Amino acid sequence: MTLNPNFQNLQKSYLFANIGKKVREYQAANPAADIIRLGIGDVTQPLPPAAIAAMHKAVEDMASAETFVGYPTDYGLHFLEDAIQADYARLGVPLTLDEIFISDGAKSDTGNIGDIFSVENIVAVCDPIYPVYVDTNIMAGRRMITIPCMAADDFAPALPSEHADIIYLCNPNNPTGTAMNAAQLKIWVDWANEHGSVLLYDGAYEAFITEDIPRSIYEISGARSCAIEFRSFSKTAGFTGVRCAYAIIPQELMSGQVNALWNRRQATKFNGVSIITQRGAAATLTDEGRAQVGEIIRYYLNNAKVIREGLLAAGFKVWGGVNSPYVWFEAKQGLGSWELFDLLLNECQVVGTPGSGFGAAGEGYFRLTGFGTAERTLEAVARVQQRFG
Amino acid sequence: MTLNPNFQNLQKSYLFANIGKKVREYQAANPAADIIRLGIGDVTQPLPPAAIAAMHKAVEDMASAETFVGYPTDYGLHFLEDAIQADYARLGVPLTLDEIFISDGAKSDTGNIGDIFSVENIVAVCDPIYPVYVDTNIMAGRRMITIPCMAADDFAPALPSEHADIIYLCNPNNPTGTAMNAAQLKIWVDWANEHGSVLLYDGAYEAFITEDIPRSIYEISGARSCAIEFRSFSKTAGFTGVRCAYAIIPQELMSGQVNALWNRRQATKFNGVSIITQRGAAATLTDEGRAQVGEIIRYYLNNAKVIREGLLAAGFKVWGGVNSPYVWFEAKQGLGSWELFDLLLNECQVVGTPGSGFGAAGEGYFRLTGFGTAERTLEAVARVQQRFG
Repeated sequence: MTLNPNFQNLQKSYLFANIGKKVREYQAANPAADIIRLGIGDVTQPLPPAAIAAMHKAVEDMASAETFVGYPTDYGLHFLEDAIQADYARLGVPLTLDEIFISDGAKSDTGNIGDIFSVENIVAVCDPIYPVYVDTNIMAGRRMITIPCMAADDFAPALPSEHADIIYLCNPNNPTGTAMNAAQLKIWVDWANEHGSVLLYDGAYEAFITEDIPRSIYEISGARSCAIEFRSFSKTAGFTGVRCAYAIIPQELMSGQVNALWNRRQATKFNGVSIITQRGAAATLTDEGRAQVGEIIRYYLNNAKVIREGLLAAGFKVWGGVNSPYVWFEAKQGLGSWELFDLLLNECQVVGTPGSGFGAAGEGYFRLTGFGTAERTLEAVARVQQRFG
Repeated sequence: MTLNPNFQNLQKSYLFANIGKKVREYQAANPAADIIRLGIGDVTQPLPPAAIAAMHKAVEDMASAETFVGYPTDYGLHFLEDAIQADYARLGVPLTLDEIFISDGAKSDTGNIGDIFSVENIVAVCDPIYPVYVDTNIMAGRRMITIPCMAADDFAPALPSEHADIIYLCNPNNPTGTAMNAAQLKIWVDWANEHGSVLLYDGAYEAFITEDIPRSIYEISGARSCAIEFRSFSKTAGFTGVRCAYAIIPQELMSGQVNALWNRRQATKFNGVSIITQRGAAATLTDEGRAQVGEIIRYYLNNAKVIREGLLAAGFKVWGGVNSPYVWFEAKQGLGSWELFDLLLNECQVVGTPGSGFGAAGEGYFRLTGFGTAERTLEAVARVQQRFG
């Protein structure tokens, strides 16, 4: 037996391990230090009450034979697909139920989607970028090209200078927190249709959009023939620990072939999402659930705003934090990403994420997130302002 | 963009769709018919009370910030790995925690495991067989050889006559319900070690073992250097609707390389199992949970026994039903699998699964399952006996 040789081409992923090690060492050397962690991309607020109630009910349903459900393919329920369909309808985006694929996470989906594409395809990824797009294509042995996203363009990705078959777009973007508007997205959609390319559009952070920009790629005309959209309940409704997401694959994409292949892939390698999780997810799409989710999102967005405005006041160049929980900023005085990490840890006891961890173009930049508590976020920003202001 | 061309080599999977269609048509033509479904491989009994209680508690934990948990990699809990480690220790099988990988299903695991193996490997699969093993390797473009499992050998797989790098073994077997003993497994382990092959050992039905045969491949000496074991809470504890399974990858397998690659694969493409599901799964491994699970298993096994003995009394040649919820039998009078399906549906109003759906070697055989209710199982067997006895 031989192993997949492509795994040898993966870079060791030391980013979060390195961060953890440095923080542990600092804490050990400074036991009294009050460290504030704003590096993590994970939510901290509890699930909305509507989801909790629905999940208790779903657990109870599993306790009696009359209401017990087994394999998702067998019980034929599609209450969550119905709710997602209605959610898109609010944006003026019509979907059929067979275009909606429920999954356990956008990470799984954006990783596994490669199964249905030829390994001969050329993949374009932005830099900086969510590392899963890169690593999964290295594992598959695909050739990749990089789209540098520059500060001068507010980190909007420019069209690739060479052919690409598959393009990953994360919008609003992780890590830069920036979001493309309709005109910018239209350029990508037209380019993809012209080149017979597919856009893998990761909309995991759409719930954080506050400006008048598209929430779905399908608000752009032509997108149904070139784009797959990924969404998640993780950041939207706090589901990182209970796992629920979905992919939209329009029937127009290669005359239904892409939809058919993903359907076959999922039917073969996946057995659905916990019914308890699905009940909770559907509850977040009711009027009551939406109101509760909106509150949580506003809480995180307010943290992001506090960070953004604090950094601006301290003289940093700042992006994101308006349509995103992420705030991205340039390290001052020509510091490298890791140099700023050390400085913030040692002098402010604030932990963030070095931009270089998201790709070479991230060097010299830094990410903070709005996922902490309001109190600790204020305190962290005050410390940074005191040091840099 | 081009699609993965290997998908064109997949056979259309009509088995359960065909069954569903035939049943619906029969019911429409005979509205008063009282159809009994014993074809399904899904559980019907509610979750054990210990799991229900643990899951309610886990839901409540998600309702307050103090007990809320997000990404599994961040909270660092490994209560379920601990419980699984203790479960294996009861068999005299020591495992380290890093050899245990929690997942959402054995179907996902046996499907996704191919990611870490070269596409150049030759794969051996039994016939009849669980179709996922075949389809996932077709998708990956691997060459496959077939190990026919013959009635004369009680459907035990014979060693392949040509080289194979990867061998799937499902034990106790789906669909035949037969199980290999220690001596039979030892032959496979020795062969795999001798040939540098890996055994993908699917133990999803180990909980149904009643005879003195191994429950884990690691009870066989030498298995740690050649075998990956897959297990699931689905059939064991009724988790088909809430999703939990695990894979064991010993560090001896290629000096830890296989473990390291799966770790990287899962870290890249998977974000863990719902914390609520995991709490429920761990509860089934407590003393209380074990007792409750044991009761459910005995219930299904009793159904299987009723089917087995009823078919034997009616003059069928029968396998399985002793260490398995599945009963496999030869169609009488030279009937084909689908001919028997039609006969049972039309004359007994009993639905089963044609053996030919599991591979060419399954032609002329038929599968019934013990997953129905006790009352309906008795009734179904009585009808079959009346027709064939």
